[in-house]
This record gives sequence, C-alpha cells and structure tokens, in this order.
Amino acid sequence: MEISLQDIKEARRTIQGIITPTSLIPSKIISSLCGNQVFLKCENLQKTGSFKIRGAYNKIANLTEEQKKRGVIASSAGNHAQGVALASALNGIESTIVMPVGAPVAKVMATQQYGSKVVLYGNVYDEAYEKAIEIQRQNKTTFIHPYNDPYVIAGQGTIGIEIFEEIQTIDAIIVPIGGGGLISGIAIAAKAINPKVKIIGVEAEKASSMKESLKIGKIHTLKSANTIADGIAIKTPGDITYNIIKSLVDEIIVVSEDELANALFIFLEKEKILAEGAGVASVAALIHNKINMVNKKIVALISGGNIDMNMVINIIDNSLLKNGRMAEIIVSIPDKPGNLQILLEIVAKTRANIYSIFQTRLKPYVNIGFQEVSMVLETRDHHHIKEIQEELTRNGYTIIEE
Amino acid sequence: MEISLQDIKEARRTIQGIITPTSLIPSKIISSLCGNQVFLKCENLQKTGSFKIRGAYNKIANLTEEQKKRGVIASSAGNHAQGVALASALNGIESTIVMPVGAPVAKVMATQQYGSKVVLYGNVYDEAYEKAIEIQRQNKTTFIHPYNDPYVIAGQGTIGIEIFEEIQTIDAIIVPIGGGGLISGIAIAAKAINPKVKIIGVEAEKASSMKESLKIGKIHTLKSANTIADGIAIKTPGDITYNIIKSLVDEIIVVSEDELANALFIFLEKEKILAEGAGVASVAALIHNKINMVNKKIVALISGGNIDMNMVINIIDNSLLKNGRMAEIIVSIPDKPGNLQILLEIVAKTRANIYSIFQTRLKPYVNIGFQEVSMVLETRDHHHIKEIQEELTRNGYTIIEE
Repeated sequence: MEISLQDIKEARRTIQGIITPTSLIPSKIISSLCGNQVFLKCENLQKTGSFKIRGAYNKIANLTEEQKKRGVIASSAGNHAQGVALASALNGIESTIVMPVGAPVAKVMATQQYGSKVVLYGNVYDEAYEKAIEIQRQNKTTFIHPYNDPYVIAGQGTIGIEIFEEIQTIDAIIVPIGGGGLISGIAIAAKAINPKVKIIGVEAEKASSMKESLKIGKIHTLKSANTIADGIAIKTPGDITYNIIKSLVDEIIVVSEDELANALFIFLEKEKILAEGAGVASVAALIHNKINMVNKKIVALISGGNIDMNMVINIIDNSLLKNGRMAEIIVSIPDKPGNLQILLEIVAKTRANIYSIFQTRLKPYVNIGFQEVSMVLETRDHHHIKEIQEELTRNGYTIIEE
Repeated sequence: MEISLQDIKEARRTIQGIITPTSLIPSKIISSLCGNQVFLKCENLQKTGSFKIRGAYNKIANLTEEQKKRGVIASSAGNHAQGVALASALNGIESTIVMPVGAPVAKVMATQQYGSKVVLYGNVYDEAYEKAIEIQRQNKTTFIHPYNDPYVIAGQGTIGIEIFEEIQTIDAIIVPIGGGGLISGIAIAAKAINPKVKIIGVEAEKASSMKESLKIGKIHTLKSANTIADGIAIKTPGDITYNIIKSLVDEIIVVSEDELANALFIFLEKEKILAEGAGVASVAALIHNKINMVNKKIVALISGGNIDMNMVINIIDNSLLKNGRMAEIIVSIPDKPGNLQILLEIVAKTRANIYSIFQTRLKPYVNIGFQEVSMVLETRDHHHIKEIQEELTRNGYTIIEE
C-alpha cells in the first residue's frame, strides 16, 4: 500500500482533538550552537510523552468493529506501549501489552494506568515480541506494529503537516530513526508539501540498522542494539519503512553515546526541557556539527521524553564530570589528627565545594603512616580543577592518579 | 506613579521582537492532579531563562541618552542579573552586576557571557546590594531595581496581555511572589482586561514577606529568607509592589519546601520541563490543593528555570526516596565468605536493583563476627519496599533502623 499526503490528511482528521498539536518552539541555544535557526517540535510534551500516540490512535480508530471487539495486542518496552494503551482506552477497546521483564517500572505502571493488561515476558524485546505474536494467534486480537504499518506511518506523518502549517519556509527536518515509522510519515507529508525540504535521519551509532541496511541494499539485522537511546534501539528495520526512507530521506547520520548524553544534558540545563536519549538524537546531530548547513531554518524533532529519573541523574553526573564542573581529586595526608582539616582549608580557599569525601588507609600503595583522601569537588571548569591541583601541589601534596 | 494598562501596552511595543512571546502550554498532568484546566506560561523557556528580561529591557530602553551613556548597575544573585546583562547588551550600554561571592558559578558565567562586568562582593544579597548602591553613587550610573520600579513592573505586566490574547476565558492566574514585580504587572494588565479574573500569589513558607506585610498592614522585613526557591527569597517587599498587591491580588498562599521540591520533581518527570524552585511555586500550590477551585481555566506562571544541576540531582534523589522509588535497607550478615552473595540473591529475587552498597564492621552496635551491609535499592513503591523487608525477615535477617 502506497501512503500519500491524502492518507496523512485523513489521519489528521482522525486524531484531531485527541492529540496535542505541539507548537514549534524557537531555540536560541541550539541555534547559536549550530549556526542555524532551529525550531523544536517537542513530541516529548505530547500526550503519553511521545509521538507514538499519533500512529497508534490512527491505526486503532481504523479497525473494523469486529476487530475492535476482539481487542488489540502490542509488544513494547516503552513509548509504543503507552501509545497503544491510551489509544485503546480512548476507543473503548481492550488492549494487552507484552513488555520485557526488565522494562522500567515507571513505564509498566504508566501503561497499566491507561487500562492495559500488561504481560511481563522475556529478557529482551524480541522475546516479548514473540510472546505477543503467540497470544495474538490464540486470541485473534489485532497486533499493532510499532512502525511497519501504513496507518501507523500515516499517523506519525501528521507531524509533517503541523510543521508546515506553522512555518512554510522550513529548509530541513531532523528526525530520529528507530524502526523508521516516524521519519517515513514525516518525509511523505513534507516532501509532498515542499519537495525541496531536506529530511535527515539520525541513528544511534550503536543501533544504526537503517543506515546499514541502505548501505548493503537490503534489510539488515544487527547482532545487538544497546544504546542510551532505548527508544530507537531497533535491530531490524521494517520493509515498508525501509522502502519509504530509501526513496525520500536525503541522508542518515549517526551519533555516539557521548554525543547523545551531552545533548540530553545541554537540552536539560540550557533549554530547560527533558527528553529521553532517542528524543535528543536530532539535537546531538545539530550541536556536534553533523549537519552540513548554515543559516537555514531547521526543525529538530524531539521524539519523546520518557526517561528513567535514575538515568537522568547518571547523565547529569557524567556530564558535570566531563565538563569540569565536578572532579575527583585524590591525595595522601599524614595519618595524624588535624591533617584532614589542613587539607580542607586549602580546598576551601580555591572556592571548590565538597560534594563527597572518603578517607582510607586500606590501599596497597598508601605508605604506612599516611591516609588516602578522595574528594569529589564541585568546580567551575577544567581550568579551575587545574588551579586546585596546582594549589595542592604547591602545599606539598601529591595528586594520586587512579 | 500609577501604572496603567496603557503603560504595559507601551512596554509591550518596546520589548516586541526582543523577548520570546511564550505560548500557553496545556498541561494534562497538572490539570488531572488538581481538577482544573491548567495552562502553563513557561517563562523558564524565555530568553535568559526567566521573565526578568521583560522588565529589565523596558526599564533600560526608557533611560535618557545621558543615562544610557553612563551605564547601569544592578545587584542580583540570579535571574535579574542575566536580565539586566542581556538588556544592556541589546541596548549597547555598559552594565555592572554585583553578585554575592557564593552565587552559583553557572549564573556568574552566564552574566559575564552577556557582556556584563561582574563584581563579586559580600556573603548575602543584602551586602551585594549595599555595594551596588555605593558604586552607583560614585559612578552616577543608574541602578536597575529588580522589582520596585514602574518600568520594571510594566515590563513584567506584558505577560498578562499575552495570556488574554491567547485565551480570553481564563478564570485565574497563579503567580509566584518574591519582591512582587511580576504579580503586580500581571495583576494590573489582567484586572484591566477582565476585572473578574482571580490573581493568586504564591510565596515560599520560609520567605513569605509579602503575606506577612499585608497581615500587619505595613512593609515587614523578615529575619531570614532561606528556601530552595532562591528566586523568591526576598526579605523586604517593595512599597510600590506592596500597594499594587494590596489592592489587586485576591489571595496569597504559601507552600512548604517539601511541596516545592515535590512539584519540581513531578514537573520534570511527568511534564518533561525543568523549572527552578521559585518557578514551580504555582505548580506546588495547584497539585497540593491550596487553590480552592474546580473545573476552572487556570494559568500557572512558571517564572524561571535557572537552577544548579547539582540541586536538580539532590531533588530527584530526595523525591525518589520519599516516593518509595529508592530505599536504604540495612541488615547485618555473618562476617564469613559468601554471605554477601547469599543476601544479594534474595534481593535479586525481589527485582529491586542495587544503586549502591556499603559494608562495614566498624559500628558500635554490630556484634562481633558480623558485618553491617547498607544497600540503597531502586524500588517500585513503598509496597515493594515492604515486600523486600518481609522477604529479608523471612530469611532470618534483622532490618536495622538507623
């Protein structure tokens, strides 16, 4: 089945009043970091915290009455689960979602709260998928594919129409690629409205199944897809999405885990918006200068914001360390009363704040009569860290490199 | 000087094209938590990360050529500093900002990056303020007050006009109060457009100088104002703002530190938007049912988003602990090989993930031949924690309460 702008316009009428039409937000920060005029399409602020509700709702609303009566089933570790759950609830039909056993508790709970029956099965997505297909065969329910489905693709495509309704002169749209449903829908809509617009996909380096597939000319299954961008950690692209992307997407670029983490941190600290790993793939591509454009009007699609708060803490900690705003400094001090205080007096003078401190004599390389003090400090930047280290050295301390 | 809707309309023409007209964002989460239809006015997404640029720009643009030539000075530990710095840069004039020595590094750097000269002086805001006044007297520069100034108030009032341009049928606007400039401007605009609209102020319990002043009928100076909502930690309200609030604001309510922290966490996790402590005061009031309204159209003003990332980590950690999504469990185990492994096997079965673990025999109450193990676990909720504790008890462990 060919998907046309007409199908996407119909999808739009179907989901009207159901989804939130997210407004483009001009971003001063990302714009200045990449030299373009960047607008954010924040689908992390969408209902269920991601764009998935668009496609899921369009698919479910188009089922026959008979199909609706039998209910739907899906497998997902994340956003698609919540999209199908809410879309089912809104259509008044039953839904079952198979999620891997290790799925984040917050996502399992959110899915249940929308009224879905959640089955926890398998250790990875593929096992949950197999289980869902098995249940589907027994119960004759309809399986809602997360991306390889014309109605799902048309639903996601509504984003493309919304973008051009707001700003007609957009030069490029940067979209994360997982299974490819989102970029397929947007590409169909956008290229039909303005054939000159560039559609650029972004994959995580560690899960670049679509780029690989296009390179070798056929659908390719990765051995693994482990990335902090779990929303786009897909081992096998769909065949429908593969063909659309092949003909309509101008370029696919990849971003590293470090680039994703850094983008998430900057997006949170400077832009004040929380996105998940997959959600900031477009931001990562822009701020790390992977997009070969200057002074253009670019839409960065932020696909979702469902991220574990523990992961957020992890990424903040890591970014502060990398940017020199936190540092671990280890020195040895004489094992006698008062010596920690003397050390801390010097640290206090450098205006570094102590985040945590740990002292032990139980290290093989610590000389007898000495203790090792490991301090995590809040610092200004790498220059400040160097200043502190030099001040300690000047006062006779030896910095221990671990 | 009386401030009128006309002054605010003029301010609007002055700041047009300079500031970002922030669009109202409908919030499903906050709406369902408080039973109203809530729209967010996200001034944390404003240039400089807060509304302060509106008033600062309006004030500076209205200086005489002579005054502009001599430059401006301000004292601030935060958002006003950045507002004055950017407004000065945009008007091509020189600015000096006095900040207390302990001001967050990120804010000092941001202020410098806009081109301001930053003077670090004093331990608290009051000392920085005195210093700024001293410099102002020497240099004949113009002091830009953060709130007690008609031009500043008119600038902040532009928010009121923007709100009604988007939605005419708003029933109430909830606004944080620090010095009172923001709510004064909004109240003048909103009540002039629709006298029936309710304007409700929110103060931090630990810095409720305006509520206290209104209670005793004259301006009151608090002994201290320490709150995580540092943006509204004001000891003395202004007299101009006091009089406007007295005549136009319908109610002032207070929120506790816990309520502010919880609101910040929910706003980040569910709404995917980062705000500072003062920024979520309106959200705290709504989700903790301090606003006596149901089924109304309410605007929650999010005043700013400039918060230290270390503080963000702190609040997330704290909220996860309070909501039962993290827990510390301490048990003692025999001091013999293999016993930690046996303990962890039981923990693994309960599906709690280990965040950190610490083992020691150096506690006065740990019996000889035993070790104390303290585990921080990632858990689902308080019920899950109880399950884990019961499972451990069933296996012969004694839970140690610290």
